[in-house]
Amino acid sequence: MESAGKPIRCRAAVARKAGEALVIEEIEVSPPKAWEVRIKILCTSLCHSDVTIWKQSAGPGVVFPRILGHEAAGIVESVGENVDEVKEGDIVIPVFQSNCEECRDCKSPKSNSCTKFPPQLNSGMPRDGTPRFMDLNGQPIYHFFNVSSFSEYTVVDIAQVVKFNLDFPIDKACLLSCGVTTGLGAAMKTAQVEEGSTVAIFGLGAVGLAVAEGARLQGASKIIGIDLNPAKFEIGKKFGITDFINPSTCGEKSVSQVILEMTDGGADYCFECVGLASVMQDAFNSSRLSCGKTVLVGVEMHGTPLSINSYEILMGRSLMGCLYGGFKPKSDLSMLANKYLEKKLHLDEFITHQVKLEDINEAFELLHQGKSLRCIIWMNK
Amino acid sequence: MESAGKPIRCRAAVARKAGEALVIEEIEVSPPKAWEVRIKILCTSLCHSDVTIWKQSAGPGVVFPRILGHEAAGIVESVGENVDEVKEGDIVIPVFQSNCEECRDCKSPKSNSCTKFPPQLNSGMPRDGTPRFMDLNGQPIYHFFNVSSFSEYTVVDIAQVVKFNLDFPIDKACLLSCGVTTGLGAAMKTAQVEEGSTVAIFGLGAVGLAVAEGARLQGASKIIGIDLNPAKFEIGKKFGITDFINPSTCGEKSVSQVILEMTDGGADYCFECVGLASVMQDAFNSSRLSCGKTVLVGVEMHGTPLSINSYEILMGRSLMGCLYGGFKPKSDLSMLANKYLEKKLHLDEFITHQVKLEDINEAFELLHQGKSLRCIIWMNK
Repeated sequence: MESAGKPIRCRAAVARKAGEALVIEEIEVSPPKAWEVRIKILCTSLCHSDVTIWKQSAGPGVVFPRILGHEAAGIVESVGENVDEVKEGDIVIPVFQSNCEECRDCKSPKSNSCTKFPPQLNSGMPRDGTPRFMDLNGQPIYHFFNVSSFSEYTVVDIAQVVKFNLDFPIDKACLLSCGVTTGLGAAMKTAQVEEGSTVAIFGLGAVGLAVAEGARLQGASKIIGIDLNPAKFEIGKKFGITDFINPSTCGEKSVSQVILEMTDGGADYCFECVGLASVMQDAFNSSRLSCGKTVLVGVEMHGTPLSINSYEILMGRSLMGCLYGGFKPKSDLSMLANKYLEKKLHLDEFITHQVKLEDINEAFELLHQGKSLRCIIWMNK
Repeated sequence: MESAGKPIRCRAAVARKAGEALVIEEIEVSPPKAWEVRIKILCTSLCHSDVTIWKQSAGPGVVFPRILGHEAAGIVESVGENVDEVKEGDIVIPVFQSNCEECRDCKSPKSNSCTKFPPQLNSGMPRDGTPRFMDLNGQPIYHFFNVSSFSEYTVVDIAQVVKFNLDFPIDKACLLSCGVTTGLGAAMKTAQVEEGSTVAIFGLGAVGLAVAEGARLQGASKIIGIDLNPAKFEIGKKFGITDFINPSTCGEKSVSQVILEMTDGGADYCFECVGLASVMQDAFNSSRLSCGKTVLVGVEMHGTPLSINSYEILMGRSLMGCLYGGFKPKSDLSMLANKYLEKKLHLDEFITHQVKLEDINEAFELLHQGKSLRCIIWMNK
């Protein structure tokens, strides 16, 4: 491509100050260095982590101006040296979870963490720490999760790029780059929910609903959704939710007590998709004492630790968690893509809204108000 | 047998007061009621739980006079109604962990807890709550773990009786009734340690050494023992311990730091066999961040809860535990017995001392001083 090796000028939605509306501006995107891929983003979507980071004005990893966004799909514009895995014109998704395929953890079937590039709120590229974006005054604009997809072009390390078939619907590919895959994997890979089992899911955002969808695919017989928003029951039914609890209407009983009764002693699998230590405790207490697994999916918002009665662990309860659902980006996504193409996996239902890049702040508003599951942000439509 | 259906007078070591030497006295043992088995104990051994309960003067489940002991092997003297599984003359072991084979958990491959008779510090039989022992003044003597093996005869529910082959060495059968099986199962069944993996074991009593033996059988490549008693390294080598850490000689480094360095990022499997929340934290912190499993085996002595950073669970660490190693008494013990007969499993090495019933207080002293692993107490030798 003619642009290869040269900087590209394009539009991006830049977060200039914590919590303030993103600014659509023209920026310059450097060519990819060795092991890097420059991607023309076709569509991107908004995940709660973007909103969390956007709001933070201080703390580790907080830096402005910054380009947020880490769920996306695009087309390879050009590649740097040493990149053989993808080439110009390939359809790819960037993924926050690295997968170098060389380190001990990438080679192990037991882990999906990459030891070479552990997850971090990096402000630059993973190998040299510097950004590939600058504004038209020549000032740097920083990255997020090494992805930064709220831009018409971005540069991503090859360890975080997954190739898709050209004929796979681009907006569904976008969904698989973070939240939905996280939920599916939590049920399918981390917990390995099995046929006939009982499941309780705390928090029915897109991730929680994707847990339900994963549990449904695995054949769970009872999938209980727990959410303060009663509208989530109807929405959840599309993804396999069979029962619903609104914690504010449990009266004198705790949510855990209600679940223990509904499941004759506790759910086989409990998932926390909110990110609050108190909800994690509720999930743990709702699991079957003799063998219930509690899977943490949400990132605790306040750093509050969990307090666990070790006797309950001795009795058979266990506690586990995952990032990206425990899936390895480069080897596990084709299975999900195939399930979608075979019409087994529901993905379309996660897309509740669509906007253009210039209206990206609407997507923030919709997610913030709990009105959207996923809002697809199209770059050029 | 002539004694069937009648009370039996025999000797027992009775705990009459907390922490005071057991008293060898003549007692009366009632005939077994329905679903019960009266066993002539041939040998028994002392486990730390006996010592813990013996010392307690107050708290839930504390009752005196009581017959302690829950590791044993014996011969069926007579059976009550509805008992078809064993008959007079069979070699059996009593097990504190019930296995009714009828409840949901007994039927599930995921659990070894019995919902019908959950573990409790019962003072009587599980079905009717009354004791089968009395002293010669007609006063009741209470049970422990529904086993009470420090007596020439005891009565145990059929849900807690496992039949052994007549030719299996009786003292080795005795070992399999609690501590050694607990450690073996923690490694083999609960953690499912795999070939080439790294293991750290906190506390090298008989249970911790049995974890090592289980990990060795599973093919672990590095088995690190952690104990304050340096003599445990030599003892541990017999059971597969390859490396040793004395926490008191780590200098400025924490045990966890030392283990992270020895294992290039953390052990694949960490086992806590002490029963202290602080050691459980050390074990958790010593596990590989991306996929390390921490298995709790020890019962926390002070009820102190564990404090867990949920982010580390998200990164891949998990926490589990087990009673009786996760093994189902009635279906899993034959596998261990066969491994012993095939000379794959080391059991003889756990027996460090042997005494007669009348010298049972010596066994307490030896265990208390950390001098014995298992002391076999012979009823008639």
